[in-house]
Amino acid sequence: MKTKEIIKRKRFIYVSRLALASIFILIAFSVKAQDNIATKLGYAANAKLLIIHADDLGVSHSENMASIEAIENGSVNSASLMMPTPWVLEVANYAKKNATTHDFGLHLVLSSEWKNYRWGPVSSIEKVPSLINEFGYFHEGCTPTVNVKEVEVELKAQIDRAYSMGFEPTHLDSHMNCLFQSEELIEVYLKMGKLYKLPVLATKQAVPEELLRKYDIQILLEEVLTIMPEEYIKGPEDYYINAIKNLKPGLSTFLIHTAYNNDEMKGMNIDNTEWGNEWRQKDFDFFTSDTCKNILKEENIILVTWRQVKDAFYSN
Amino acid sequence: MKTKEIIKRKRFIYVSRLALASIFILIAFSVKAQDNIATKLGYAANAKLLIIHADDLGVSHSENMASIEAIENGSVNSASLMMPTPWVLEVANYAKKNATTHDFGLHLVLSSEWKNYRWGPVSSIEKVPSLINEFGYFHEGCTPTVNVKEVEVELKAQIDRAYSMGFEPTHLDSHMNCLFQSEELIEVYLKMGKLYKLPVLATKQAVPEELLRKYDIQILLEEVLTIMPEEYIKGPEDYYINAIKNLKPGLSTFLIHTAYNNDEMKGMNIDNTEWGNEWRQKDFDFFTSDTCKNILKEENIILVTWRQVKDAFYSN
Repeated sequence: MKTKEIIKRKRFIYVSRLALASIFILIAFSVKAQDNIATKLGYAANAKLLIIHADDLGVSHSENMASIEAIENGSVNSASLMMPTPWVLEVANYAKKNATTHDFGLHLVLSSEWKNYRWGPVSSIEKVPSLINEFGYFHEGCTPTVNVKEVEVELKAQIDRAYSMGFEPTHLDSHMNCLFQSEELIEVYLKMGKLYKLPVLATKQAVPEELLRKYDIQILLEEVLTIMPEEYIKGPEDYYINAIKNLKPGLSTFLIHTAYNNDEMKGMNIDNTEWGNEWRQKDFDFFTSDTCKNILKEENIILVTWRQVKDAFYSN
Repeated sequence: MKTKEIIKRKRFIYVSRLALASIFILIAFSVKAQDNIATKLGYAANAKLLIIHADDLGVSHSENMASIEAIENGSVNSASLMMPTPWVLEVANYAKKNATTHDFGLHLVLSSEWKNYRWGPVSSIEKVPSLINEFGYFHEGCTPTVNVKEVEVELKAQIDRAYSMGFEPTHLDSHMNCLFQSEELIEVYLKMGKLYKLPVLATKQAVPEELLRKYDIQILLEEVLTIMPEEYIKGPEDYYINAIKNLKPGLSTFLIHTAYNNDEMKGMNIDNTEWGNEWRQKDFDFFTSDTCKNILKEENIILVTWRQVKDAFYSN
């Protein structure tokens, strides 16, 4: 799918950037950030900390119900909501009711990628013309032609909408990584974190050094683990077990997508093969399984939340 | 449900208005309009003409799929789309592909009545503040506080969106009858019909005489048959069979709601008991049944479409 190719291209760009960067600076920074996170959260410096995070809440009733089930009875311990989606009120109300115990952030959205099921911006369509198509919907994928000032307007509108619904997000992240397309967009993303005093999901590889300094970013994830199509074909369970067994010390996250493979998801998934209905059912199956629970225990993985990170780093 | 009570109240108001009006004028008008429709469509003056019309297309994948099935293999022969809904593109694309054979109009929308699953206007939220709540969604039901000029802006935006998607509606009608709340709103509704040269669904009882003349309305339905809660409880099949057997000569319409009673519809139907998931499944069941087909044949009911009406009355 076109949009997934954009993500892959982006990953390549950032990996290349990493190779060109000063190894000394990165290692020094990495060690500093790593120690800060683990010890500041009250764990040993070499602890393996993990956030098991369900993306895309609000996108459908199926995604909401499966993700809530995976949080209540599975191993998922964090999730993020897409404010422009039609079903967001369902999960925002749930998040409000479980505000002290559950971990819900915002999955900041600039795209509307399902062929026949669409949404547009939270802000007025007149304020963000570069973000929308001729029908007022977000574009199908990440597009390089978005106006950065309009992105800022829309991201603020999404975050403000969450608070106006009475739900306080624990963190920010970026749907389909669209906010990692350019340094200008990364900067808007980090700016939102600073403005609203919320941790933002980012890795060392993805954020230029000067922006880390400018926005005083202290929380960088060791690894962001998302299953890609080539791994999905080989079998998601193998990928996830292997990833858990090889988790590095420090704070990492799984970004997963939990939904029931029902008529609603099948309808959404027309002309799409990746991150679709069957895929999301398999993510649900693994992350609600005893296999997953057992291996997390065996490997001494400590599940932590964005709320813990927020409280430790943004309480002042 | 609050919104349904508004509809019932509205019905009472119009029935009362009818009682006060001049019986002579109404009978004279009725006879004139009746003769025009039946004979202009090429049928005997006393023919029983019926449009079996599925409302609410676009509201969900379930509603789209069930309604298309009821059109292709059942007795439903017309439907209308809600342009602000998340799933409208699915059915707009279907309408485009079947433009010459199928009958699709616009179900003009001013409300967003499902508790956890919402949508807002097609036009910019800044242009229609009276139509939306604090989250930018339409209000939950018909509200008397809408600004009539903003309603006109929004209705034009919905109709223009349909044409811009490449789908030409055959007629206009009003979701939840919100456009029949006041004479001012009825006037905006009739104005849209005149502006876009499209027939509008209206009965003799609902439209004041002066507006009929002002907008040169020649097509008035004999009866608009929608099952109400008290009849639904007794059994929808009995209601529909009885309504078909007692159909009056002239042009009438059933307004029905066809959807599959699946997880998506159950999720939408939270805190609602009327016109919900079970109701819509039963409408689907009856209007795809042989019972329905047979009784239409036995009673010599002639199924006609809004396209026939449009071609006969709006071709010049």
